[in-house]
Amino acid sequence: MQETYMRRAIELAKKGIGAVNPNPLVGAVIVKDGRIIGEGYHRKYGELHAERDAFAHLTEDAAGAEMYVTLEPCCHYGKQPPCVNAIIEHKISRVYVGSDDPNALVSGKGYQILRDAGIEVITHVLKEECDSLNPVFFHYIVNKTPYVVMKYAMTMDGKIATYSGKSKWITGEEARAHVMEQRNALTGIMVGSETVIKDDPSLTCRIEGGRNPVRIICDSRLRISMDSQIVRTASEVPTILATIQSEDQADKKQKLIGAGVEIIETESVDGHVDLQELMKQLGVRNIDGILLEGGGTLNESALKAGIVKEVDVYIAPKIFGGSAGYTPVAGVGVESPAEAYPFALGSIQRFGADIMLQYFQITA
Amino acid sequence: MQETYMRRAIELAKKGIGAVNPNPLVGAVIVKDGRIIGEGYHRKYGELHAERDAFAHLTEDAAGAEMYVTLEPCCHYGKQPPCVNAIIEHKISRVYVGSDDPNALVSGKGYQILRDAGIEVITHVLKEECDSLNPVFFHYIVNKTPYVVMKYAMTMDGKIATYSGKSKWITGEEARAHVMEQRNALTGIMVGSETVIKDDPSLTCRIEGGRNPVRIICDSRLRISMDSQIVRTASEVPTILATIQSEDQADKKQKLIGAGVEIIETESVDGHVDLQELMKQLGVRNIDGILLEGGGTLNESALKAGIVKEVDVYIAPKIFGGSAGYTPVAGVGVESPAEAYPFALGSIQRFGADIMLQYFQITA
Repeated sequence: MQETYMRRAIELAKKGIGAVNPNPLVGAVIVKDGRIIGEGYHRKYGELHAERDAFAHLTEDAAGAEMYVTLEPCCHYGKQPPCVNAIIEHKISRVYVGSDDPNALVSGKGYQILRDAGIEVITHVLKEECDSLNPVFFHYIVNKTPYVVMKYAMTMDGKIATYSGKSKWITGEEARAHVMEQRNALTGIMVGSETVIKDDPSLTCRIEGGRNPVRIICDSRLRISMDSQIVRTASEVPTILATIQSEDQADKKQKLIGAGVEIIETESVDGHVDLQELMKQLGVRNIDGILLEGGGTLNESALKAGIVKEVDVYIAPKIFGGSAGYTPVAGVGVESPAEAYPFALGSIQRFGADIMLQYFQITA
Repeated sequence: MQETYMRRAIELAKKGIGAVNPNPLVGAVIVKDGRIIGEGYHRKYGELHAERDAFAHLTEDAAGAEMYVTLEPCCHYGKQPPCVNAIIEHKISRVYVGSDDPNALVSGKGYQILRDAGIEVITHVLKEECDSLNPVFFHYIVNKTPYVVMKYAMTMDGKIATYSGKSKWITGEEARAHVMEQRNALTGIMVGSETVIKDDPSLTCRIEGGRNPVRIICDSRLRISMDSQIVRTASEVPTILATIQSEDQADKKQKLIGAGVEIIETESVDGHVDLQELMKQLGVRNIDGILLEGGGTLNESALKAGIVKEVDVYIAPKIFGGSAGYTPVAGVGVESPAEAYPFALGSIQRFGADIMLQYFQITA
């Protein structure tokens, strides 16, 4: 039964996708005499935490009840008062928890306060599932830089476009709908100037009720056009342009700023934007997660900079062929297989006829 | 219970892998009063069929017993007398069958003869699993051309070698061991002259007790060296060189033949070997299945010729990058995504850290 209630809490947590960043997704269930008497989840950044949301939806008194919560209850005053207080006040007898708080400063303290109040605490219930709710949060709270998910869609033979540059479409509707969900779930989306010049995308989230990600364009030499979709919609959708510090093109910078684009300047690394520095600056701006949608040159730079935490590879059941076809990671590449960027396979998901392989960075 | 016994028959059938071509893998189990009283399988081309092998291993009289067999029993005289006769003679009461005979001339006749003899016949037990034992046989018996499996190992970003041509190794030991099993299971192996010149492979099956595949080299302009591994071992391992009809290089042809290489000549198709014609000629030589191990140029030609029935894509959890890295299907490629070669995803298998995606040709 423990797992059944925790699964329900996980399900509830997911309802907050796209609305809670940079907070974590959290769900909570309150059970008394084998009946669920309260359910809640963190609905939106700045609003009630999951535990308090569950208490707000109680159908009867919670004294003596058990609580299932996907993440260690907080014990500090932030935008909300500590959840441990609410748990104690409601006389909960036992708390089942999934994930520990990743913040080293408070991890374990929530458990201690509850135990000191005489409440039994059982930790690590479906820990792996609970942890996988919040890879972005877990990374961001420790590193203060965004969790970067490199995403690309390729054919069975590793092409993201035909030799003539055509790529519409590689994957089917279900896979593309899933990408839209990721654009909704992650705070930022990043592409290179090459992609803007070639495809003129809007990079918005086309889900009803969805939230547009902050658009981040890496454009070392300020090549994107004032007439691009991105610049033309910059007053409506938050847009950041990352470029190299320079006295040149002061006029264009002013025009871009006038159009609503925020400009972040970094030192040059081999003629490109310093991506590590950019990640720090984006972290300061509360951008906790980024969907990196390439193209090949930016993808290689991101791998070199070591900022890619996850790679989502969509594979369509078709072959383009072509030695001049475009591949997902370009640039120069490694010279020897031993120098390859290593990853570990996470999940395999099917979307219609396509599949998605999810890989995680292997950290030394 | 039906499925349990049929699964056992499937297991037995697989013991013949690499030894029965161009015959199918077949397994048989005889059951009496809930006990297995005989098991058998087709062990080797030219030897007993599975049904007769099971009768040869009976532990008691089979009268009134039931038989489970993965493929419709044969009813014609070939290298062996018809199995239906043996089933009738042994007074089997009921026969459970997995796959129908794919040969239109005899399909269903085996069932009819058994039923006419008063034996109950139940067909299509675990049909899909039984069918998937013998994709090569099913294709070959109908088309008289080899079933071609295109196989390649690539990185997550679709590279089969780094920009400098290095490819050792992309996948890990378990995946490479599986390729050796395929070399044992399929009658032929085919590569282009480019691969012979670049890698100088021996293309043998390095499994103890395994059988070497017939090596087929596509070499339109007779470019491979007399000193290559392939030519030097051609007197021990069957080797076919496919080239374009021409009066040129008569000397080299004689030397190759002297070294033990068989030469097949076809008309030219865009300066390359006519692969459709080559498949017909290989079919005549009892080559029922081929593992196509590329490289990229030959892979594209094979797709263009429509001879690829299955594609096995091994994907390693690493990234090479590089716009000049080698990709599994090269040549010119298609211009527009709508012209892509379409496939359907079959199975997904894990081999250590790698995975293999198996795709099947979509036939119009």
